[in-house]
Amino acid sequence: MHLEKSLFLCFLLAPFPNRMFADEGLWLFTDPPTSQLQNKYHFTPTPAWLDHLQKSCVRVGDEGSGCFVSPDGLVLTNQHVAAAFLQKLSDASHDYLANGFYAPTHEDEKRCPDLELNVLMAVEDVTDRINAAVTPGMEPEQAFAARQKAIAEIEKESDNASGLHSEIVTLYGGASYQLYRYKRYTDVRLVFAPEKQAAFYGGDPENFEYPRFDLDIGFFRAYENGKPAHVENYLKINPDGPAANDLVFVSGNPYQTNRQLTVSALTNWRDFRLPLYAQVLYRQEVLFSAFGARSLENERRVAADLFIVQNDRKWAAGALDTLLDPAFFEKAFQSEKVFRAELASLVSHRAGGGAAGQTALQAFNRIAQAEGDIAQSLNKYAFFEGVPSVTPQGFDSELFYIARTLVRAAEERSKPNGDRLPEFQDSNRVTLELRLFSDAPMYDDVEALKLGSSLTDLACRFGPANPLVQQILRGKSPQERAVEFVTGTRLKEVAVRRQLYAGGASALKPSSDPMLALAALVDPTARAARKVFDDVKETEREAYADISRARFALEGHAAYPDATFTLRLSYGPVVGYEENGHFIPPFTSFGGLCRQAAEHQNRPPFNLTKSWQNRQKRLDPQTKFDFVTTADTAGGNSGSPVVNEGGEFVGILFDTNIQSLAWEFAYDDRQARSVCVDAAAILEALDRIYDAKALVNELSDESATRH
Amino acid sequence: MHLEKSLFLCFLLAPFPNRMFADEGLWLFTDPPTSQLQNKYHFTPTPAWLDHLQKSCVRVGDEGSGCFVSPDGLVLTNQHVAAAFLQKLSDASHDYLANGFYAPTHEDEKRCPDLELNVLMAVEDVTDRINAAVTPGMEPEQAFAARQKAIAEIEKESDNASGLHSEIVTLYGGASYQLYRYKRYTDVRLVFAPEKQAAFYGGDPENFEYPRFDLDIGFFRAYENGKPAHVENYLKINPDGPAANDLVFVSGNPYQTNRQLTVSALTNWRDFRLPLYAQVLYRQEVLFSAFGARSLENERRVAADLFIVQNDRKWAAGALDTLLDPAFFEKAFQSEKVFRAELASLVSHRAGGGAAGQTALQAFNRIAQAEGDIAQSLNKYAFFEGVPSVTPQGFDSELFYIARTLVRAAEERSKPNGDRLPEFQDSNRVTLELRLFSDAPMYDDVEALKLGSSLTDLACRFGPANPLVQQILRGKSPQERAVEFVTGTRLKEVAVRRQLYAGGASALKPSSDPMLALAALVDPTARAARKVFDDVKETEREAYADISRARFALEGHAAYPDATFTLRLSYGPVVGYEENGHFIPPFTSFGGLCRQAAEHQNRPPFNLTKSWQNRQKRLDPQTKFDFVTTADTAGGNSGSPVVNEGGEFVGILFDTNIQSLAWEFAYDDRQARSVCVDAAAILEALDRIYDAKALVNELSDESATRH
Repeated sequence: MHLEKSLFLCFLLAPFPNRMFADEGLWLFTDPPTSQLQNKYHFTPTPAWLDHLQKSCVRVGDEGSGCFVSPDGLVLTNQHVAAAFLQKLSDASHDYLANGFYAPTHEDEKRCPDLELNVLMAVEDVTDRINAAVTPGMEPEQAFAARQKAIAEIEKESDNASGLHSEIVTLYGGASYQLYRYKRYTDVRLVFAPEKQAAFYGGDPENFEYPRFDLDIGFFRAYENGKPAHVENYLKINPDGPAANDLVFVSGNPYQTNRQLTVSALTNWRDFRLPLYAQVLYRQEVLFSAFGARSLENERRVAADLFIVQNDRKWAAGALDTLLDPAFFEKAFQSEKVFRAELASLVSHRAGGGAAGQTALQAFNRIAQAEGDIAQSLNKYAFFEGVPSVTPQGFDSELFYIARTLVRAAEERSKPNGDRLPEFQDSNRVTLELRLFSDAPMYDDVEALKLGSSLTDLACRFGPANPLVQQILRGKSPQERAVEFVTGTRLKEVAVRRQLYAGGASALKPSSDPMLALAALVDPTARAARKVFDDVKETEREAYADISRARFALEGHAAYPDATFTLRLSYGPVVGYEENGHFIPPFTSFGGLCRQAAEHQNRPPFNLTKSWQNRQKRLDPQTKFDFVTTADTAGGNSGSPVVNEGGEFVGILFDTNIQSLAWEFAYDDRQARSVCVDAAAILEALDRIYDAKALVNELSDESATRH
Repeated sequence: MHLEKSLFLCFLLAPFPNRMFADEGLWLFTDPPTSQLQNKYHFTPTPAWLDHLQKSCVRVGDEGSGCFVSPDGLVLTNQHVAAAFLQKLSDASHDYLANGFYAPTHEDEKRCPDLELNVLMAVEDVTDRINAAVTPGMEPEQAFAARQKAIAEIEKESDNASGLHSEIVTLYGGASYQLYRYKRYTDVRLVFAPEKQAAFYGGDPENFEYPRFDLDIGFFRAYENGKPAHVENYLKINPDGPAANDLVFVSGNPYQTNRQLTVSALTNWRDFRLPLYAQVLYRQEVLFSAFGARSLENERRVAADLFIVQNDRKWAAGALDTLLDPAFFEKAFQSEKVFRAELASLVSHRAGGGAAGQTALQAFNRIAQAEGDIAQSLNKYAFFEGVPSVTPQGFDSELFYIARTLVRAAEERSKPNGDRLPEFQDSNRVTLELRLFSDAPMYDDVEALKLGSSLTDLACRFGPANPLVQQILRGKSPQERAVEFVTGTRLKEVAVRRQLYAGGASALKPSSDPMLALAALVDPTARAARKVFDDVKETEREAYADISRARFALEGHAAYPDATFTLRLSYGPVVGYEENGHFIPPFTSFGGLCRQAAEHQNRPPFNLTKSWQNRQKRLDPQTKFDFVTTADTAGGNSGSPVVNEGGEFVGILFDTNIQSLAWEFAYDDRQARSVCVDAAAILEALDRIYDAKALVNELSDESATRH
């Protein structure tokens, strides 16, 4: 399942692609692959075509992608992108994740506690302004601070001027800075989701596999001023879906790719980052599985956590397999060698590019050195900090996240905007507060389970004799201490959080609350670890930017930048592939689903849900269900609309096959495919399985409004 | 579930117990707790009582314990002890592990491919003879070799003289050596097992928990010369089971305990051994779970592996929790401090004990230093060697085990018996060949799965740049290479193994078979790692022996030695306990099972099997099902008979509760309990659920013989 990976792995975005494959590319809407499309497919996307698609697309929280599909703010995404919110809206007697949800009228739609949707409205190049803030000769620490300050200033200025949410995006590893302006919706309501078993048929065993039979769809609605938002741009559904060999486009927000890493950086991923990450995931998967097996209610409480961990584990294992293949490394090594030779020749032969080439050649060494520093401090950084604005990897607890946010907010908000940690800058305030004040349910047993396992991991990684570990545990066992933190804190009450946040440093007495005390106790260590990393990242950012600039000098701007969880366009035909001597056709069908369920004696995770069992005879067995395309995607693309040349919605992306796990580091279209639900399947299932007449009408009739 | 833990964790057995609790102790039959029983329970086991019980007990392979329950060699043990053999006897169309098995006549009984039963017949003290071989001033390496040689000599001499299988057992960490002589049965046939779901009701969530509702029983029969073995000693079943507060005895083979470790050794367990072991188990659990979820046949193929890994994971997590509790460590620290003060006082005040006290005090430092060496080399040793005669931890593959055994046998068998690695000495030949020539099924997909994961782990632990790793992988990915090893080897054929084993070094050309080549390639590294460890162990053995001797000087022989997978006697009453303010009664009942299944809507793992669903009305809901006792046990005790003062069988041990996981390091009877199936439940279920009339008759009538 094609969800965003944990941000834990992501802090480098870098700029030199290897040889390009046929339909490779996560293209910017500001720099689309016009000539490639023209040359190969004789299709030219017009500015209007691009603008309409861009503004129809939606970024769904931190979770993935989606698009508007009606003028009344109806958003289509994946069930698995919606999963965290389905879980948050559920309780012991309503399990929308397992059983699905349908609101036949607007009144039935349920507001999600902490979901925001963002629609990209405008892009502006601010590279020169950012670079002007960083002067040559600055130490990494100063350069980092100066850049952060400039970014905060520009974002705030843009927020104020445009009324739109503004974010500066670093592209080509630091060679380009773009100001993105988003229309943001924070009142988002749940409209429809099928049962998890229908959306995720085949479960973990079939995740990242093909052929598939998954109805991985979910509908939200954006609201403004308490009413369904009226939107100008939305996609019309083509009820036939795509045909084999049709050229299709995927438009969404791939979270990250690492296709331009140097060999030294790839080595670090292989030898340190991925093995450490896999260890964490194996432990968490066993933790959640074992807890969930105890009762149905336990299973419900950890369902979304378990899904994410299993998904990430499969991704991490696949990425590790890719990097442990010496053939992959040999290719990367040769590609880097060729590029360095070109740089050397640039130095010798081109007057203008000489300096750039020289700097780029040195940049490889700076990166290698920085990667050494990263390997040394990775364990501490990963545990104590994770990545800003994401739950820390180490202290796996929402209550700890809240405590840390309050402790840091008290300190950060008293600083000038540009000097704060980015997640506390004014332009990120709405997002921060949405999560901080969320009234999504929390369960003491789950919180204690996660935190207890975290503290055990802490003691194992740093040793029980470590002074900070001893200060945290205070002579108790990790499990016992976790229960104390969780049961003793008042942060479960949203009102308490609001009060402490509003009161700032003067309201906050960490000693009065054990979870706040924990967050305050570890904060100096966590901030110190983060600072070490920020400085190293700054060194790498400058080095990758130097390499990119040299590449621009050699090749022009022909390449796309690595993914940054911002809007990109991919393309490719709907085609099958060969595997173990068999041809895997591009489409599956409803009939295929029934055959697979029968082969597995209808046993989980290959069972039909009751609704599908009861109504399967209403379905046309020939109806296309899922399909594959060569279009290049990555985690975060989940929920992306798939459109045809006419700009019509023909399907929705929800996964890639197992061969595509290598796309993290390099695109290849021999077997790797993106996996999508066909528009035909969506309409037929909504109509005949779920009796969602109002929804089908809204999708079919552009002017209709539901009541 | 109370299975033996992997031997990976076990190589130290040491001699100073802390304060003794009420019914603590894993007592030797040669040194029973007569005065304790007399003082507290006014019961004195007579020599005849002990002799009869000892010779009725059976050690079941490497798996656990059991006992004879009829004169015709019928052996009762746990279903989970039998699980590996149920799996080996199964195929895609017969799943005896899942569905159970019953042979109504001898002709229907199925021979297990590689199971041996051992009955302890005689014990002889050989401490002086062993110690005479090791002279003061020897280096650890020489001392280790001399001791191994002496052990091999005595064992072989005893084998020849007695016709019994002879093993020398190291007790009190090296202060005592005992020659154990066993009657061995290698023709062992399966008679009965219930469905896994009936034996292991509640599954992993309820493993190591109480109250329980598990019919964890299985029957084998020992054969001699193709006929049921006639045995003099067997236990008669008391059909009523025990009553509350009855004194009961558990007689079986606890695998290991570590109750006499020094604080430095405990620290090493906490900081290195257990965290590393837990990591391995988390990875393997996810591996087997994910593979098993793909299809019913996959699930069947890894069922026994998954069970063992989950069981060990729960044990390891519990042991780690125990050691991460600072209160536990403080107690161990204080206890060691008191003992060292007593030793110091021995040095000052007693002429005779002065030298022993001085040596013992120094021994603590020698152990601390040895533990430092262990921490340094643990990673390499654990991966490349695991523990002799057990599947290596690193290369998790039965085919690799076979290859290594053949490669080493070719070298070892050409040496004099006393110079060989212990598993290749003559006294261990039968055991070695039983496994080596086993025709139990192997599955390429499972072998490749396990070996692929092993090679990935190898590359992650030692780095893909490690020269040996590169020689193993030969430029391929770990997964790809694993498939080559597994599909390329001829060792799947038993005839090939026999031929290579018989032909010795001259028949063996490792280059001709990829798996043999792998075993030969890693052997120097593995042997070197083992040698480092053997020397350290020798240092520790001498140090712990010194401490034991000083303790004998202080306290006499009042204490029992740590467990060594040899026959021990424990005792205690059948009593419940308090937990979270509730009293947990000692017994459960058939009625309780039906209530629990209903509460969980009969969903796995809390479902009744079809046989129980169909016939539950035949059962008396009042019949006692499982019960708990304070009797001290450990992994390996699984399947131990529980007898009353009259020496009658009243139940069978199958587990401990979660509080007893701390028993690895210290006994405590506030909440910790051993968990057993009641004899009443066994007879009623065999009769009314399984219609096993012949079996019930054989159990009930001492003179009856089945036909």
